[in-house]
Amino acid sequence: MKTQVVIIGGGPSGLLLSQLLYTRGIESVVLERKSKDYVLSRIRAGVLEQGLLGLLEQAGCADRMRKEGLPHDGTLISYGDEIFRIDFTEHTGTPVMVYGQTEVTRDLYSAREAAGGQIEFNVEDVVINDATTDSPYVTYVVDGKSRRLTCDFIAGCDGFHGVSRKTIPEDVRTEYEKVYPFGWLGILSETPPVNHELIYANSDRGFALCSMRNPNLSRYYIQCRTDDDPNNWSDSAFWEELKRRIPADQAAKLVTGPSIEKSIAPLRSFVTEPMRWGRLFLCGDAAHIVPPTGAKGLNLAASDVHYLFNGLSDYYRNGSSEGIEQYSQRALSRVWKAERFSWWFSSITHQYPDQTPFDLKMQVAELEFIRSNAAAQKSLAENYVGLPY
Amino acid sequence: MKTQVVIIGGGPSGLLLSQLLYTRGIESVVLERKSKDYVLSRIRAGVLEQGLLGLLEQAGCADRMRKEGLPHDGTLISYGDEIFRIDFTEHTGTPVMVYGQTEVTRDLYSAREAAGGQIEFNVEDVVINDATTDSPYVTYVVDGKSRRLTCDFIAGCDGFHGVSRKTIPEDVRTEYEKVYPFGWLGILSETPPVNHELIYANSDRGFALCSMRNPNLSRYYIQCRTDDDPNNWSDSAFWEELKRRIPADQAAKLVTGPSIEKSIAPLRSFVTEPMRWGRLFLCGDAAHIVPPTGAKGLNLAASDVHYLFNGLSDYYRNGSSEGIEQYSQRALSRVWKAERFSWWFSSITHQYPDQTPFDLKMQVAELEFIRSNAAAQKSLAENYVGLPY
Repeated sequence: MKTQVVIIGGGPSGLLLSQLLYTRGIESVVLERKSKDYVLSRIRAGVLEQGLLGLLEQAGCADRMRKEGLPHDGTLISYGDEIFRIDFTEHTGTPVMVYGQTEVTRDLYSAREAAGGQIEFNVEDVVINDATTDSPYVTYVVDGKSRRLTCDFIAGCDGFHGVSRKTIPEDVRTEYEKVYPFGWLGILSETPPVNHELIYANSDRGFALCSMRNPNLSRYYIQCRTDDDPNNWSDSAFWEELKRRIPADQAAKLVTGPSIEKSIAPLRSFVTEPMRWGRLFLCGDAAHIVPPTGAKGLNLAASDVHYLFNGLSDYYRNGSSEGIEQYSQRALSRVWKAERFSWWFSSITHQYPDQTPFDLKMQVAELEFIRSNAAAQKSLAENYVGLPY
Repeated sequence: MKTQVVIIGGGPSGLLLSQLLYTRGIESVVLERKSKDYVLSRIRAGVLEQGLLGLLEQAGCADRMRKEGLPHDGTLISYGDEIFRIDFTEHTGTPVMVYGQTEVTRDLYSAREAAGGQIEFNVEDVVINDATTDSPYVTYVVDGKSRRLTCDFIAGCDGFHGVSRKTIPEDVRTEYEKVYPFGWLGILSETPPVNHELIYANSDRGFALCSMRNPNLSRYYIQCRTDDDPNNWSDSAFWEELKRRIPADQAAKLVTGPSIEKSIAPLRSFVTEPMRWGRLFLCGDAAHIVPPTGAKGLNLAASDVHYLFNGLSDYYRNGSSEGIEQYSQRALSRVWKAERFSWWFSSITHQYPDQTPFDLKMQVAELEFIRSNAAAQKSLAENYVGLPY
C-alpha cells in the first residue's frame, strides 16, 4: 500500500492535519493505536486559541464549535480573597473559545469520515522505517495481519508515549524536562459553572481552577500531591477544598453536585529538539508537553500542524522544500514561547513545596503588579489567546 | 536639644529627606556614623528614575545633575551574541538619568550646608528611645560626649546594618530574605564606555553589565562566586572575562585600561515589614535591599522619602496623621513591586548553579519573548524607569 503522508496517531492533531491535507488534495492515512471510542473518551483541555479556530475553519470543521462554543473575553485570577480580570478582547482584540478537546476530535472524525478519509484503528507494532531516505515506509499490525505503507512523509502525532519520537536516535536529539512537584485533581460535574469565565486561583492551600465545558458542565481542578489518589477524595471533600481556595464571594456562589469523572494528572514541561528527522515530523505531545495552566497543549499541537501543513502544501504544490526544512526551527520557536508561558503561569499560581516566605511574597508581588499594570496584562493576554503563528 | 525630625544616617536618602523638609520649614538633624569623606567615597549605582529626579528638583539639588547627567533613552540586553534594545522613551515617554549616587550625595551635602542644615558626623552609640510615645528621643555620643535629642519623629535612613531596624522589636516585624548564590565583581576605569547605553549581558559564563558614570568613566561588572576575592582578578583577567560575556561585536569595541577601583558586592533581596513603628520610620536600605540588577536601590529609597516627606509635611501643615499612618503600607506596596522587578531581572540575566538545561531554555525563551513582544518590553521599561509613586 502507498499514500502520500502517513499520520501516526488519531488524536486531534493527526486528524486536523489529515483533514487539512485533504482540502489540498493530499492523501494521508491515519494510524491509531486505540479505538475511536477510546480516543473520544479522553477528557482534555477546552480552551481554543484563535489560531486553532482558523485551522478548524480552514478544515471545514468549525460549524458546531461556532454554534456551541463559548467565546470568553477574559479570565479571572485570584489570590486569597483578591480577584482581578484580564480582558483578552480589550488587550488583543480577540477572545478565546471554550469548547472541549473531545468535541474538536469528534468534529474532526465526522469530517474525515464524511470525506472517506482513511483511518486505521487498533493498530499495533508501528515501526517507522527509512525516515532519512526519500522513500520511508511504516509497518504495523492490525487484526493480527502485518501491513506495510510506503509514503513520502510521516507525521508523528502519537503523543508523549508514542513511537515517533523514540524513532529518532538519541544521539541526534536533546530532551528538556521539568517535572512539577504536584498534580491536578480534576472533576467534571453537571452543575452550572461558578462563574461565566475561568478563575485561576492561587491560595495558601494551593492552586485551583474553575473551568467549564458548557453552561451545565463544570470542570474544576485543585493542586494535589503527586502521590495522591482520586479515591482519597470524596466529592464533598473535593468541594470543601475547592471552596477554601477561591475567594469567599465565589465560594458562596459555588453549586456543587456529584462528580461524573475524577482523576489526577501530573504536571510536566518537556521539549525534544529537533522536531524533524529526515522525512519524519513530530507534532504536538510527541515533541512537547506543557503543564495545563493556560491550556496550551492542544493549541501548541495546532501550531505545529499549521507549520507542517504549510510545508507539505508547498512541497506538493510547487516542489518547494523550504517549509519542510524549516519546520523544526519554526515550530520550536513558538513551542519555547508557549513552554515559557505555561511554566510562568504555573509558577505564579501554584504553591511549591520549597518556596520560602520571600518566594511567596514574589508571587503576590507579581500578581499585584499584573493587576496594576496594563502592559503586563496585555503581555499575559497575548500569550493566553495565542502568540502569532 | 530638640528638633522636629531626627534623621539617622547621612547617606542620600537621609540628606534628601532633610533637604525636602527644609523646603517646607521643617527642622531636622542628621546623625551620621562616619565622616563626610567616608560617605562620599562609597561607590554605588548611578541610574536615576524620574521620580528621584523630581524629588531632587523639589529639593533644589538638580542643577549639576541636569548639566552633567546622561539621559538614557533605552538599554541593551544581550544573550550570547544576540542583542536587543528596550526603548524607555518610546514605551514610557521618559528616559532614565545616568548620574552617580556619589554625585547625588555630594549635591545634597552642598545644599544642606548652604542652608545651614544640621549634620553631625562620627556619631556613635545611637539609641532610639520611646519611639511608640508622642515624645521620642535619640541619645548618641559624639567626640566622647553624650547627647540627647528630643524630637517629634525619627527617620531611620541608616542602611541595612543600622540601628533603626533593629530598634523595632522582633516580635512586631517580619523579615523576608533571599541571598543569591553569586556576587558582582565590579571595576571603575577611566575609559570611554563600550556603548553609549548600558548592556545587561546573559552569557553561558554568567552575567555581565557594561555601565558608566560619564563619557570617560566606565563601570563594568561580572557575575562571580560569592567566595571570590578581587585580588584574584588582575585587570587583564577581568577584561578577558568581560569580553567573553558580551556579544563579539561589542567585545571588539571594548576599550580597556587600568582599574581605579575593584570590589565584590554580594546580591541580596531583603524586606522588613512594617516600615513604621510608632514615630520611627524606616527608609531605604534600613528596610529593604535589592540586588543591583536594574539599579533600584537608591530609587527605592527615594520613593520611601517621597511617602515620608509627604506624610510629615501634611502633619506639620494641617495636623493630618493620615500620611504618617499609611506610610508603611504605601511604601511597601511599591517596595515589593521593585523587589519583584530586581529579582526577576536578575533571574533572566544570571547563571544560577542549580539551573537545569530546561531552566536555561526558559531564560532564553523569556529573553526571546521580550525581544519579540512590545507589551513585555513596555512592562520592563515601565519598571526600569520607575513605577509611579
